[in-house]
Amino acid sequence: MKRTHTCGGLNKANSGQNVLLQGWVENRRDHGGLIFIDIRDRYGKTQLVFDPTLNDETFTKAKELRPEYVIEIEGSVHERPSGMVNPHLKTGEIEVSVNQLAILNKAKTPPFLIVDDVDATEETRLRYRYLDLRRAVMQKNLILRHRVAQTMRQFLDQENFLEIETPYLMKSTPEGARDFLVPSRIHKGKFYALPQSPQIYKQTLMISGYDRYFQIVRCFRDEDLRADRQPEFTQLDVEMAFVREEDIRDVVERLMVEIFARIHNIKIERPFPVMTYDEAMAKYGCDKPDLRFGMPIVDITDIVKHTEFKIFQMTAEQGGMIGALCVKGAASYSRKQIDLLNQFVLDMGGKGVLNAKVGADGWESSLKKFLTPEQEQALNERLHVREGDLILIIAASKAEVQRYLGELRLKFGKQENLIPENSYQHVWITEFPMFEYDDEADRFVAMHHPFTSPVDSDVEMLDTNPELVRAKAYDLVLNGHEVAGGSIRIHSSEIQSKVFSLLKISKDEAQEKFGFLLEALQHGAPPHGGIAFGLDRLIMILAGRQSLRDVIAFPKTTAALSLMDESPSGVSPEQLKDLGLRIENTKG
Amino acid sequence: MKRTHTCGGLNKANSGQNVLLQGWVENRRDHGGLIFIDIRDRYGKTQLVFDPTLNDETFTKAKELRPEYVIEIEGSVHERPSGMVNPHLKTGEIEVSVNQLAILNKAKTPPFLIVDDVDATEETRLRYRYLDLRRAVMQKNLILRHRVAQTMRQFLDQENFLEIETPYLMKSTPEGARDFLVPSRIHKGKFYALPQSPQIYKQTLMISGYDRYFQIVRCFRDEDLRADRQPEFTQLDVEMAFVREEDIRDVVERLMVEIFARIHNIKIERPFPVMTYDEAMAKYGCDKPDLRFGMPIVDITDIVKHTEFKIFQMTAEQGGMIGALCVKGAASYSRKQIDLLNQFVLDMGGKGVLNAKVGADGWESSLKKFLTPEQEQALNERLHVREGDLILIIAASKAEVQRYLGELRLKFGKQENLIPENSYQHVWITEFPMFEYDDEADRFVAMHHPFTSPVDSDVEMLDTNPELVRAKAYDLVLNGHEVAGGSIRIHSSEIQSKVFSLLKISKDEAQEKFGFLLEALQHGAPPHGGIAFGLDRLIMILAGRQSLRDVIAFPKTTAALSLMDESPSGVSPEQLKDLGLRIENTKG
Repeated sequence: MKRTHTCGGLNKANSGQNVLLQGWVENRRDHGGLIFIDIRDRYGKTQLVFDPTLNDETFTKAKELRPEYVIEIEGSVHERPSGMVNPHLKTGEIEVSVNQLAILNKAKTPPFLIVDDVDATEETRLRYRYLDLRRAVMQKNLILRHRVAQTMRQFLDQENFLEIETPYLMKSTPEGARDFLVPSRIHKGKFYALPQSPQIYKQTLMISGYDRYFQIVRCFRDEDLRADRQPEFTQLDVEMAFVREEDIRDVVERLMVEIFARIHNIKIERPFPVMTYDEAMAKYGCDKPDLRFGMPIVDITDIVKHTEFKIFQMTAEQGGMIGALCVKGAASYSRKQIDLLNQFVLDMGGKGVLNAKVGADGWESSLKKFLTPEQEQALNERLHVREGDLILIIAASKAEVQRYLGELRLKFGKQENLIPENSYQHVWITEFPMFEYDDEADRFVAMHHPFTSPVDSDVEMLDTNPELVRAKAYDLVLNGHEVAGGSIRIHSSEIQSKVFSLLKISKDEAQEKFGFLLEALQHGAPPHGGIAFGLDRLIMILAGRQSLRDVIAFPKTTAALSLMDESPSGVSPEQLKDLGLRIENTKG
Repeated sequence: MKRTHTCGGLNKANSGQNVLLQGWVENRRDHGGLIFIDIRDRYGKTQLVFDPTLNDETFTKAKELRPEYVIEIEGSVHERPSGMVNPHLKTGEIEVSVNQLAILNKAKTPPFLIVDDVDATEETRLRYRYLDLRRAVMQKNLILRHRVAQTMRQFLDQENFLEIETPYLMKSTPEGARDFLVPSRIHKGKFYALPQSPQIYKQTLMISGYDRYFQIVRCFRDEDLRADRQPEFTQLDVEMAFVREEDIRDVVERLMVEIFARIHNIKIERPFPVMTYDEAMAKYGCDKPDLRFGMPIVDITDIVKHTEFKIFQMTAEQGGMIGALCVKGAASYSRKQIDLLNQFVLDMGGKGVLNAKVGADGWESSLKKFLTPEQEQALNERLHVREGDLILIIAASKAEVQRYLGELRLKFGKQENLIPENSYQHVWITEFPMFEYDDEADRFVAMHHPFTSPVDSDVEMLDTNPELVRAKAYDLVLNGHEVAGGSIRIHSSEIQSKVFSLLKISKDEAQEKFGFLLEALQHGAPPHGGIAFGLDRLIMILAGRQSLRDVIAFPKTTAALSLMDESPSGVSPEQLKDLGLRIENTKG
């Protein structure tokens, strides 16, 4: 039989109709000689009433029903008695008097209740993912995910972008994270790699003339265990030819406006603010600032370096920085609370944090005796201090001060409830350094990736001061998360070779790994650039969740295990022999 | 600078406008003191004119231009002189007088011309895929592919389907084709597998209540080399709960109607014809009949088994079949042509084919002397024979007769031009056998896959006559290609266990491979079923191409090689050590 409605589809207008519903038993309540069942599917739930005076056989059968049984019922729709209407339920105005009942499948007692605020451990939820995904809150997340992906595709299609599929079995070119490898059976001893991103292919497509490409695509990184990473993750990958940075930002901003309008019915203002990497580091201590609240880091080195306080003097002399945060209204913090802040900084590797409470008579702090009234006044002005505020000061290297105060700022954002709910603050971070020095490897590594173009006016410095070269790279930051990152690419084979050489990638290695790209750049490569969204993270933010695993249907654990199907797993000796592989003694 | 138009966007209405174009030099013609350049992008091409009297410096620079250079020009649009209009070109009414020229990138001489009828070998085209994909015909294929995928997504979204991403790193459960394996670094000695299809996950999603699922998804099969297969291929994967076969067929047919309407502006009639597997085998000798032409196989056993012709007698006595094809107007075939047909059957392993030409006086054949006039008459009627036709007859086992005549039929379809161009004939093939016997493995194997439900009335025969059990399986066949295949699944854990046991999959093995599915079936599994499209093949048919490689951006060769990036390739000893793997002596 075929259902006439879903379990979320009936209301007063259907009164008197005969309907056929199919779904899961949520619960059974025997009450006053009647049996009440909530029947559920992904569209909602509907109250069923079994009345022995209507059909005694059906009533008797209904006594067998237990949670999660799959049933089919036929019955008639009635308005609920006026006191019984449930305004929180789409179908809360009606109930269905059941005439016929069929049990389509029975169900064992589930290991946890199928409710939103489930009390099972995450391990149990992942082990029984098919039941976890039956919970309305998880269904809501996956439906939102579908709608976001559809919105992206429709928007980009309308903008003349083409979705083009790129290979999953490609060449291993590890740079940065590790590749997942796939042994070839036909070519024994050789391997494919799973893509960390379709970067090289999308650049190839630009050279082929597909001037607006996108793809929602799975990517793979064999990284060490980290709580907020998945070995496979999804990107919205975008590339455009004949464009400048601002053209890419324009498309992305309009895409975000569209997503927020369709998903949350929120109008996002654009253009989004643009902040250089240097400014973000100086004001917020990180390259993904959460702009939903203020409290910027303030450099007070120039004011305090001439005080009698030795640490300030020495720090300034050694080229360090003295930075401060002004925490509004936190002068009431107890000794213990302040100690916890100090410990927080010590735990990050710092030497602690100085503090000053601001009372009616000015600073209350061991620092006060080192400050002239003019200096105190200058600090108050720069920090916009008012009575009742707490000032935190750190003296160290610039990088350390930025990092510690940046983390303290985020900590206050949460514990002082400075972050408004349902607020979304975008910011572009631009002009990233092209390279960062990897002390361990004793060489420069690409901060974005080795195909990123330097800023035009910095090209000359590639030879003289590579550490000062800025990249045409940009990140889109939303609420303190990097949701997308991109760059204008190098389209000159000479500059690409020079960058490889700066990264200590030898000519042979460059040829071996990226030979076809270097050759393709000599066959008519247009100026091009692009961006890639971390789709899982964006969905997580849009769904208001804290874990990527809540917005991925079948995620891996942080140990890269799938608890439901128990992969990875052993394989047969025949499979290994086919591949020409032997497993080394794993204890060795 | 930013282009004002694409190279396919200008026409008479733009006359007098100043424009900025960017694209590739298609060719240069120096003519009458002027230089003509066709500039090209994916949207079209535009004729540029460089006139020394307009800008001598630009004219001089234009002399440097060579094919595939990337240029940017600024100039003014003019109508072409009346005799020079090119009606085959979107921009054929105009040309652009160039004022400013910038060379954005130079290009080496390409290894082949960027034209539709390229004369390079496929190997060269794949090696320089970035140039091959610059050809208009390849761009047309990939644009069509994008539009088909978008149409599928929009249609299914409107029908309340959710696109849900399933894992690429899953458990190895080989059944049929081989899995590609992915060694785990963190769990040394263990492996993930790449999905042959998301079958188990989509069934899991039905159990989770997502009653309408789809996904356009990459799948992987490590098969031995075959000309028309790719190690990675794309499926449109669909699954529905609370449905019957006809509900799935209904959605699929409406999807196909939508695709043909949007892509080819063709109205496809529905419902599509439905033919059982047995009927397809009997009439067309295969389970994917090309219905764009007739010429069915005709069983003439009952008419000829009593003739004096010994072979017919013996074949009938041994339970074999005598089958015939009537080839319209082919009585004029020469001795040599008939010999070639005979050889064609010999090459397939048959014992040859008998023939009769039909002239004004009836059959002209060595068989004629064995037939009574009544028998000849009966055969003529059954075969709808007319003067000038050629009759082909094969006596052998039923399976052989069907196969040989089926192949002969297809051969005639091509060589007699029986297949109308731009014609699209769909047919559903249903009621497949549930199992086929694998002589080598000495056991039954699932004809579709082991999760396929038997036809209700045949369930009893699972114990007694498994070879007779029909499956609720269905294929969608288009122009002789299987474009989609699906089934209603087993939703009872008991029947699923019984099928595993019939397939000689032991309880331990079933538990090890599919344990979580068997368990999930006990937790409230609804009736469900689905279908999967081979997207590459469907696009190939829609694009009118003969090779899957023409509709995949970066395909592998039949030897599973990527000639552009040269994968698979060797990896470093460190990578292998990380994975705890050693390569066996590949010569051994």
